[in-house]
Amino acid sequence: MEVNWQPDATSKIPVYQQIINTCISHIQRGDWPINAQLPSQRQLASQFHVNRSTVAKAMTILLADGVLTTAFGGGTRIASNSWSTMMHQPVDWQDFIDSGEFVANQATIQRINKVETQARIRLSTGELGPDIFPVELMQHAMLQASTKLTSMNYLPPMGSLALRQIIAERLAKWDIQTSADSVLITSGSLQSLQLIAVSLLADGATVYTTPASYLKSLRVLQSVHAQFKSLPTDRQGLQYWHITAGEGQRLLYVIPTFDNPAGGVMSQQRRADLIQYAQERRLPIIEDSAYQDLWLDERPPQPLKALDKSGNVLYLGSISKSLAPGMRIGWIVGPQSIIKRLADVKMQTDYGASSVSQMVLTEVLNDPDYDRYLETVRQKLKLRRDSALSVLESELGQVATWQKPAGGFYIWLTLDPAVNVQQLFDQADQNGIVLNPGSVYGSGAQHNVRLSYAFETESQFAAGIKQISRFIRAQLSKE
Amino acid sequence: MEVNWQPDATSKIPVYQQIINTCISHIQRGDWPINAQLPSQRQLASQFHVNRSTVAKAMTILLADGVLTTAFGGGTRIASNSWSTMMHQPVDWQDFIDSGEFVANQATIQRINKVETQARIRLSTGELGPDIFPVELMQHAMLQASTKLTSMNYLPPMGSLALRQIIAERLAKWDIQTSADSVLITSGSLQSLQLIAVSLLADGATVYTTPASYLKSLRVLQSVHAQFKSLPTDRQGLQYWHITAGEGQRLLYVIPTFDNPAGGVMSQQRRADLIQYAQERRLPIIEDSAYQDLWLDERPPQPLKALDKSGNVLYLGSISKSLAPGMRIGWIVGPQSIIKRLADVKMQTDYGASSVSQMVLTEVLNDPDYDRYLETVRQKLKLRRDSALSVLESELGQVATWQKPAGGFYIWLTLDPAVNVQQLFDQADQNGIVLNPGSVYGSGAQHNVRLSYAFETESQFAAGIKQISRFIRAQLSKE
Repeated sequence: MEVNWQPDATSKIPVYQQIINTCISHIQRGDWPINAQLPSQRQLASQFHVNRSTVAKAMTILLADGVLTTAFGGGTRIASNSWSTMMHQPVDWQDFIDSGEFVANQATIQRINKVETQARIRLSTGELGPDIFPVELMQHAMLQASTKLTSMNYLPPMGSLALRQIIAERLAKWDIQTSADSVLITSGSLQSLQLIAVSLLADGATVYTTPASYLKSLRVLQSVHAQFKSLPTDRQGLQYWHITAGEGQRLLYVIPTFDNPAGGVMSQQRRADLIQYAQERRLPIIEDSAYQDLWLDERPPQPLKALDKSGNVLYLGSISKSLAPGMRIGWIVGPQSIIKRLADVKMQTDYGASSVSQMVLTEVLNDPDYDRYLETVRQKLKLRRDSALSVLESELGQVATWQKPAGGFYIWLTLDPAVNVQQLFDQADQNGIVLNPGSVYGSGAQHNVRLSYAFETESQFAAGIKQISRFIRAQLSKE
Repeated sequence: MEVNWQPDATSKIPVYQQIINTCISHIQRGDWPINAQLPSQRQLASQFHVNRSTVAKAMTILLADGVLTTAFGGGTRIASNSWSTMMHQPVDWQDFIDSGEFVANQATIQRINKVETQARIRLSTGELGPDIFPVELMQHAMLQASTKLTSMNYLPPMGSLALRQIIAERLAKWDIQTSADSVLITSGSLQSLQLIAVSLLADGATVYTTPASYLKSLRVLQSVHAQFKSLPTDRQGLQYWHITAGEGQRLLYVIPTFDNPAGGVMSQQRRADLIQYAQERRLPIIEDSAYQDLWLDERPPQPLKALDKSGNVLYLGSISKSLAPGMRIGWIVGPQSIIKRLADVKMQTDYGASSVSQMVLTEVLNDPDYDRYLETVRQKLKLRRDSALSVLESELGQVATWQKPAGGFYIWLTLDPAVNVQQLFDQADQNGIVLNPGSVYGSGAQHNVRLSYAFETESQFAAGIKQISRFIRAQLSKE
């Protein structure tokens, strides 16, 4: 086998990656036949004029991806798995540039996804702990749904009518006047955002958000090359008046009630002013209400959607935070023409959300026990929050600041700038503790950490924080 | 309100669409304030130098989409719904050009989606009829799942381990040797195709398929601008040797067993030859096996995946056709490195498939009654197929030809070229009967119709065909 090639020392592409690329293109062109044996790493290194460790790094990746295979009797051979070489094609959405903002730290998120389910202490997890899950309520709902079962074919494009009706009824308690015809069932809020992106947004649309924003941790707007712009915030919420007029599409994404990650609540006055502004300036708003039911001290102000008389607000609801993420059910409420358009696109993307989930959730939401369950969730979450705040005070009071959250799942720490948050994340990870570095949510948040008090019990949370505190002190004492 | 504009008579854009576009851009720029009243249709028509009916058509669309509103007391005003104007942005994937092939007749598919659930006789529906649905089997599964319930949080990226295990076990009966580590659970085959598209395909990849292909009726490969190329087929299956070498990515999509829409089965010899070819030429294959369990005469040949020793085949499975589309569960089997990559992308798209569906399906597949149920499905489907063939013979034997399908759901009619299929579709639709025009599956199929004998009872199917036959005779007698 001939390998007449040498890396380009002036290129910005790391040398091991250049080696990978050259191998892939030789294989794709068919220059290197299947089962052909590669020269030894030593031979390759001398031919490429690079360190053997650089060759080894490239080979490890190509072996792991199934492009190469270790032959019986020694030696490395070309595998004939034709899909593996495809993996090295650049994927368009990875090229996304989050203009003026930090590019979401995908490596960190991948790492969190990977370690989270095995971690000893999960301070990162934005889900209710399994000990809070209402087993009996759900069992009863499954039983009820099963007795009503007649078939399980595709549902109408907008989703189960019974489910849309009970959602519309429950929204009336939040002063949102709507009907089943204005509600679209989705497979969760992430999908809701995707449908909006591919159905309504123009390429290069400007999306206004808070400086640290859940939306920035997602890739969902990358396919339309949306540009994030951050709005300053104060105690009342985001300062919408910094939105500037411009040629292209502009819209606002906001979690007004118990924000993720920063935990804040937009005041009633700011909500009214924002809706007024949106009406005058024709500003479309995506209101993400995932945490709305989870107040801990007092019922929060009305949703933006309740104040919206002109159809400026697309309201996203979800059952993931207040009941069970595994249902994969969310909903969008908005003007009927928009809902129809989104439903049509949904049919072309995945033929609708799970009918089983929709049937079971319909039973849950129609069960008077669901409201009683929400009461107990709030009580349990409040205990967790208060316990979390008290252990933070004693363990991290010297090195971090935070606001007391009035609901939702999160405490947003601002750490002493001397603390290296990435290093802290790695250290915690090595010790079986997962936390979310602020950088995942935006470029200005490299000194922040998002903690969730929803998943772990009080004692587990405290144990985690005590270890985190030790890591921080160790870091600071080294300086 | 000033409307100083006139349509461009030389433009390819229809005049009513030009009127819509000009209205949208005036509104978006803020030239036309909210609640401003539009001139009357007569005034607009005279100002634009167009027919009043052209203005009326534009106004109807803008009213339906919520851009305009009918004011109390008469007159048409600008609505302030800022999302509505966004709907008129061009969506990238609608611009997709199916190179050398007929652009999928989206209007027809939208129409089918819309009318299908209300239609009197559904000859179009690729689902088992509700009368075949195994209510007791499913009820039992829901009950079993509910007793094992402990929580309903997110599952691991690849999906429920128990479900992946039972799927791997069942695949062994088809001589596919795999393990849970090589199985990814998805929200159905449509999502499987999407994950493959965004994770593995390069922009402009060439996708080889049969001339009439299910894949051509979908939009799923549009985001990567895939180009379809058709391969000729014979009684043994598609003629892979017409695949040409080229610079870019090439892959093959095929339903070797009970094809949709044409109903064919690839012979054992053709399968072996294709796999040999794929191995030598490094051709990646997507094998869609949705109908595999639904043989009616004899067990079909081994899947391509069973013959594939080099990881060239990504195998797509689904529960939609043999049990229940409402579960929204499918799976991909392939090399572990590819499965890992697809799982990572899945996490970033929708956080996984419904846990409820996965739990319930695990119980179904572990229930010995499931195989007994499959037996009865085959018996019932066989009766439907035989009855369908006999009514076709007597009603359409003079004006159409078809092959007897050995399994699956579909009969692929080739009609006398004198029959106008689009007109037939419209006529049937007006009479509450839905059928799928062949054009939905590719440009060469304008004289074809796909009939499904799976959904309706024998007598309903016969009643539908008798009406269709009358419409055809009426068409032909007019000539």
